[in-house]
Amino acid sequence: MKLYNKAILPQGFKANAIASGIKGSGKLDLALFYSDIGASASCRFTANTIQGAPIMINKKHLRANRQFRGILVNSGNANCFTGEAGLKDAQESAESLASALRVDKKSILLASTGIIGRRLPIAKIKKALPLLIKGLSKQGIDKAKRAIFTTDTFTKEFTVSFNIGKRSVTVCGIAKGAGMIAPNLATMLAFIFTDANITQRAIDKALGLSVGNSFNCITVDGCMSTNDTVAILANGAAGNKTIDINPAPSYSSRKLSRRRCGVYNNFNLFTRALNRVSLELAQLIVRDAEGATKFIRIKVNKAKSFPEAKKVALHIANSSLFKVAMFGENPNFGRIVSAVGASGLRIKAEDLKIKVSPLNKKEIDVEVYLNRGDASAIIYTSDLTPEYVKINAEYN
Amino acid sequence: MKLYNKAILPQGFKANAIASGIKGSGKLDLALFYSDIGASASCRFTANTIQGAPIMINKKHLRANRQFRGILVNSGNANCFTGEAGLKDAQESAESLASALRVDKKSILLASTGIIGRRLPIAKIKKALPLLIKGLSKQGIDKAKRAIFTTDTFTKEFTVSFNIGKRSVTVCGIAKGAGMIAPNLATMLAFIFTDANITQRAIDKALGLSVGNSFNCITVDGCMSTNDTVAILANGAAGNKTIDINPAPSYSSRKLSRRRCGVYNNFNLFTRALNRVSLELAQLIVRDAEGATKFIRIKVNKAKSFPEAKKVALHIANSSLFKVAMFGENPNFGRIVSAVGASGLRIKAEDLKIKVSPLNKKEIDVEVYLNRGDASAIIYTSDLTPEYVKINAEYN
Repeated sequence: MKLYNKAILPQGFKANAIASGIKGSGKLDLALFYSDIGASASCRFTANTIQGAPIMINKKHLRANRQFRGILVNSGNANCFTGEAGLKDAQESAESLASALRVDKKSILLASTGIIGRRLPIAKIKKALPLLIKGLSKQGIDKAKRAIFTTDTFTKEFTVSFNIGKRSVTVCGIAKGAGMIAPNLATMLAFIFTDANITQRAIDKALGLSVGNSFNCITVDGCMSTNDTVAILANGAAGNKTIDINPAPSYSSRKLSRRRCGVYNNFNLFTRALNRVSLELAQLIVRDAEGATKFIRIKVNKAKSFPEAKKVALHIANSSLFKVAMFGENPNFGRIVSAVGASGLRIKAEDLKIKVSPLNKKEIDVEVYLNRGDASAIIYTSDLTPEYVKINAEYN
Repeated sequence: MKLYNKAILPQGFKANAIASGIKGSGKLDLALFYSDIGASASCRFTANTIQGAPIMINKKHLRANRQFRGILVNSGNANCFTGEAGLKDAQESAESLASALRVDKKSILLASTGIIGRRLPIAKIKKALPLLIKGLSKQGIDKAKRAIFTTDTFTKEFTVSFNIGKRSVTVCGIAKGAGMIAPNLATMLAFIFTDANITQRAIDKALGLSVGNSFNCITVDGCMSTNDTVAILANGAAGNKTIDINPAPSYSSRKLSRRRCGVYNNFNLFTRALNRVSLELAQLIVRDAEGATKFIRIKVNKAKSFPEAKKVALHIANSSLFKVAMFGENPNFGRIVSAVGASGLRIKAEDLKIKVSPLNKKEIDVEVYLNRGDASAIIYTSDLTPEYVKINAEYN
């Protein structure tokens, strides 16, 4: 497995970005990711029940279609809480792009991040499309990864490549931050591209597994955006033997089992690569949290189950008192104890053990032991600082 | 109904406080509330599953006994996460007090607030008891209401008196703040005293009703303490006709119904007085939230039920982004929309209406309309400020 701290688009993918004028600052604000051939897609969206128009369009397209060609992303406007008009705007941007690319409109996915409750300047977007498409290239990812910024201060990108048989397979991801809030709300967006040849059910499963251990394990301020999106496109251009999920192994036939095991190992290989990309991007998001001075890893051990461990870890990570104590380098284990109890877990104080690494470092490890079982979970978070308050209070 | 912005102990109650040395500062840290005669008691404790030793002792006493004589409260130490030793310390303080007062040890209730995980200096407490008891008086409440402070900057006190027949009944309450955190953790404590003659089931019901609309409707930082306690003592010294809960009215007998209705009205009268005291104390707690510059009232209207309205209001109140926007006087309704969606409520954006009063005032009203039903709920909260972070980070 080869690892790269930068985005390297896999075979068959191109990207580009442009300053379309959605952002008043004149910065890059419209990105396009394009696959030369139809790609399988899998997405995970925010659990917030109020969702941006792009998410509603994506859900429709994902139900109706199996082959995707492009993702259009704008920053500066979330196209959320914009009603029927907002839905039509999103629909129109997908249609305009599809027609310019001469592909099915249902093969387009959308993402928006930025201010809530304001109409998308659809005319600006339509006007920008020809140039955006004309400039598509492998290197275009370097602009695109910046065009999705809101208040991000550095790019979030990672690439893994590995072999399946003699074919080299690449998984490449970019993301923008959450808990950064300006212009009006944080949105976490992550786009992952792979040339792996993989079945729909396998890509769905792999994404679900990796999101559960990465993007769903970070928290900056406990606020859930209306537009959070993780999307993966897999176009099969690597030409590897199709990756699938292993059916239940048949122990009655050793030969069959071994053959299937090979397929299963390829799924494992792919999932490992995807996990690595997802986790790197998720951690980068936390490292770029606004005003943060600490990167905090909270590991809850000896829980009854993974969900239980995660719930306790999230309660600690989202406690303002805990986050402020970390900023102040105040070894205040009472705040951790209290957060564990606030999670609703029935635990005796005697069964709870807490270890915290030295607080005067940039990276802090908190370990909690529950004495209830063998499951564990890790949550990544940042501290809460006066700078966070200042930045988010002063934005207008 | 007469209202007083200060604590006036009802008939048959006395109080006192002393600096026992638990607080290094030499400030008042041990308070005693005493009833000359046995009083009914009702309590509500934190929902945090990790609870301080005093709460465990109180639960035992409340199960075993119906007549209470005193509440011993210390600040500076929460006696929480102190294991078996902490339980013994709490038990010993109750026993020592009971023996000095010559009352049953089970007639004593306890409360502690302060640092977590440190043994209670029981010797200091025992040494202080004789003087504490000797100084008991009506006016002692003025010291006692200050002895329960942690980082409170002003006293929280309120008294209501009203007549039942020709008897004057008084309900008097004092409290200390939550979300103030130092020394190590906030604890909300409220003690309410009444000379009303009222049945056990009626006092239980009245306290439950009033806590649900007052202390359970405030949030400063969403952190739940291990030691939160609301306790009411009712000693019956007013000599009023016993207040009880109305049994289901019997419409077959008008006379009976009217008589019962009288009893019911007394219960209503008492509950109104108790609600007023509880709500005033709860609001004072929010007004004294550390670092806060705004008092915010969040009313959610047109919900399907009170719990639904309350849940949505709490999600808004606990959103760091919302609280920071209030501090910054940033009319950022996207953050409110997002918090409503994060509550898990299935609502269409079109059905959501939001009104916010001018943000440049000290008191802010947020009104949310859900278009789902006729229930409403109000939550009181404060803004999140750089000062909050500073105060809580720097405490050691």
